[in-house]
Amino acid sequence: MKAALLTWTAILAASATIQAYAGENAKPLVVGSQGSFFVGGETKTSKELSGSTTGPGAGVEGDVTVNQMYVQYQTPVNANQHVPVVMVHGCCLSSKTWETTPDGRMGWNEYFLRKNRSVYLADQSSRALSGFDATKINAVKLGNAPPSQLPNIFMASHQTSWTLFRFGPTFNKSFEDEQFPVQAADELYKQMIPDLNGFLPMPNPTWKNMAALAVQLHGAVLIGHSESGFFPEEAAMINPVGVKGIVSIEMGCTTNLKPDQLATLAKIPILIMFGDHLSDIPGAFSKLWPANLDTCNQFVQQVTAAGGDARMMYLPKMGIKGNSHMMMQDKNNLQLADLILGWIDERVEGKKVSHK
Amino acid sequence: MKAALLTWTAILAASATIQAYAGENAKPLVVGSQGSFFVGGETKTSKELSGSTTGPGAGVEGDVTVNQMYVQYQTPVNANQHVPVVMVHGCCLSSKTWETTPDGRMGWNEYFLRKNRSVYLADQSSRALSGFDATKINAVKLGNAPPSQLPNIFMASHQTSWTLFRFGPTFNKSFEDEQFPVQAADELYKQMIPDLNGFLPMPNPTWKNMAALAVQLHGAVLIGHSESGFFPEEAAMINPVGVKGIVSIEMGCTTNLKPDQLATLAKIPILIMFGDHLSDIPGAFSKLWPANLDTCNQFVQQVTAAGGDARMMYLPKMGIKGNSHMMMQDKNNLQLADLILGWIDERVEGKKVSHK
Repeated sequence: MKAALLTWTAILAASATIQAYAGENAKPLVVGSQGSFFVGGETKTSKELSGSTTGPGAGVEGDVTVNQMYVQYQTPVNANQHVPVVMVHGCCLSSKTWETTPDGRMGWNEYFLRKNRSVYLADQSSRALSGFDATKINAVKLGNAPPSQLPNIFMASHQTSWTLFRFGPTFNKSFEDEQFPVQAADELYKQMIPDLNGFLPMPNPTWKNMAALAVQLHGAVLIGHSESGFFPEEAAMINPVGVKGIVSIEMGCTTNLKPDQLATLAKIPILIMFGDHLSDIPGAFSKLWPANLDTCNQFVQQVTAAGGDARMMYLPKMGIKGNSHMMMQDKNNLQLADLILGWIDERVEGKKVSHK
Repeated sequence: MKAALLTWTAILAASATIQAYAGENAKPLVVGSQGSFFVGGETKTSKELSGSTTGPGAGVEGDVTVNQMYVQYQTPVNANQHVPVVMVHGCCLSSKTWETTPDGRMGWNEYFLRKNRSVYLADQSSRALSGFDATKINAVKLGNAPPSQLPNIFMASHQTSWTLFRFGPTFNKSFEDEQFPVQAADELYKQMIPDLNGFLPMPNPTWKNMAALAVQLHGAVLIGHSESGFFPEEAAMINPVGVKGIVSIEMGCTTNLKPDQLATLAKIPILIMFGDHLSDIPGAFSKLWPANLDTCNQFVQQVTAAGGDARMMYLPKMGIKGNSHMMMQDKNNLQLADLILGWIDERVEGKKVSHK
C-alpha cells in the first residue's frame, strides 16, 4: 500500500514535468542549437577490461578511454548576447541536478537558456555518462589485486541526504520555512548515484576538462556545487584563459592558496552562495556547514585583499530564508537563478541591468 | 604531438556540433516541452554504503534507491500528432548513443523531434544517470564478501569495438563502403562506458521500467539496440498495454517463446533492422552477426505465423550498403531514421504516408 502510494506519487511527479510550466515559462522553447560531446580523456591499455576469465574481452589486452567529461548543451537563438554558462554537479549526483526539479518544476538549465544563455551541463569525469575506470574493480575480481585496493565508493543514504542537505532537523521532519520540495524527496533519491571520484588520479581530471571547455567556448562562467563547488577555482588555477566568471555554491574553500594562485583568481569575478539552517542539523553535520561558510568568507577576504572581485551571498543575511543545500531545486530556485543572472550581467559582462 | 593532434580533432568534432546543421535541419528547434524524470526504483537498506571504515556514511545503515531508470525527453509543439518514441541504448553505452554523432552530425533524438515525435531517451537501470548498486563492491572492500562475488563488469576496448561494430576487417582499417564516420572513432570510444548489467537482478528491471514508461506515456514505440535490442519485446511480454510498436536493432532474438508470449507480441507491430558486413569481420565475431540475423528471421516467421505484423529490414538486401552496428551514428543515419519514421506512420499509426 505504501509502495503503491509512492509509485503513484512518482508518476504524478513525472507527469507534472510533461505538463506545461506556468506563465512566461509555458511558452514553447526556441533552441538555437543543441547536442553533446566530450572534453578530454586519455587512452588506457589493460588486460582487465572484463572481470570474467571467459567470455567477451576476457584476458585480452585492449585500449579504453578514461577521464573524459561528457557535456550536453543548448544555445539560444542569439547565443552571442551573453557569456555561456557551464554547470557541474556535486557528490553522489549527476547533471540531473540542474534539470527538472524533483517536484517537476523548471531546472536552472532551461531557465538560464530562456534568459538567453548558452548552457553546458557536464557529468564529472568518473560519473554517469562520463564513464569510469572499471579495471580497478576487475583487477580484484580476477585476483590480481587485493580487496583493500578497491577505490572507495560512496552512496549517500536517504537519511544522510535529508539532514546533510538541510531539509530538516531529523529524517522526514522538515524545517517550517524549508524551501526544498520535501514531498518529492523520493524523486531526489533516485538521482543520487554512487560517487566514483575515488577512482580518479590527482589532480582531478574534471578540473582540467572544465578549463579546456571554457577555452573551447571562448569564455564561460563555471558553476560548481558542493563536491564541485571549488572546481571552477581549481580549473582557473590550471588555466584561467577561458574562465570569465566563477559561481561556487556551498562547499569548503581552500584558504592556503599561494600568492600567484590568488593573483590568478583575483582577475576573475567570483560569486559564492550559501543557504539557510547551516547549524540547525544534528551531529557532526551541524559543524560542517558553518565551517564551510567560514572558510569561504576567509577566501573572499583573501581574494579581495589580492585586488579581486569576490562576493559572498549568504542568503538568510539577504532576507532569503529556508534554502537547502539543493538550492537549484528549491521552491524559490528561479529567484536564486535571477540573483546569479544579475550578478553575471553586472560583474562578468559589465552591464547595468537590474534583475528582479 | 599525436596527443595534440587528437585533442585538436576532438575540439573540431565538438565545435562542429556547435555549428548549425545543414539545410532544413539548420532552422532553430522549437520545443513544446522538455525535462527529465525517473521510472521505477526500489529502496534498499544497507550498511555497505561506503567502502571505507571511517568517514562519511561508514558502517551506518541507511536506505538508497536502486534499479530506477533515468529518462530525458523533448516534445514537439503539437505532441499529439504522433505516438511518442522511447530509445534505449546497448552494451557499454549510454543514451549518448542517440545524440550528436561522433563526427558532430544530428542524432536520431533531435531528428525524430523535428519530425514531430516526442522523444524519450532512457539510461538503462544500472548505467549512467540511472546509477547502480555499489554496495556489492563495498561488501568486498569491507571484507564482508569474497572478490569472486564481485559482479562482472565489461568494458569494450577500442579494438573490440572496431571489429564487433563492423567498422572494418581489422583495427583501424575500414570497409570501402563503410558508413560509420571512422575518422571520429575516438569520439565514439569516449561514450563507451563500463557495463554494470551484471549488478542487476533478473528479470532485468529495465524491462519493467520500459513497460511502465510506455503506460505512463499512454502509448509509445519502444526502440532497443544491441544488448537492449530485444528489451522492447521483453517489456511488452511483461505489460503490453502501452507498447504500440517495437523497433529492434541488431541483436539476438529469442526463438523459444511460449504461444501466449507470441500471441502478445503478435498484437504489436515489430520492425527489426540489421546492417551490412555481418560476416566480414574476424574470428568469433564473423559468426555472431549472421547467427543473430538468423534467430531474428526465425522470430519474424514465428510472430507472423501467430498472426502478427513483424518485418525484417536487412539493409543490404534493400540496396543500402555499408551500415555498421552503430547505424544511428552512421553517415546515412537520417536515411535510416526515415525508414523507421515511415514504418511507424504506416504500421503503428495506420497512415498512408510515403517517407523518403
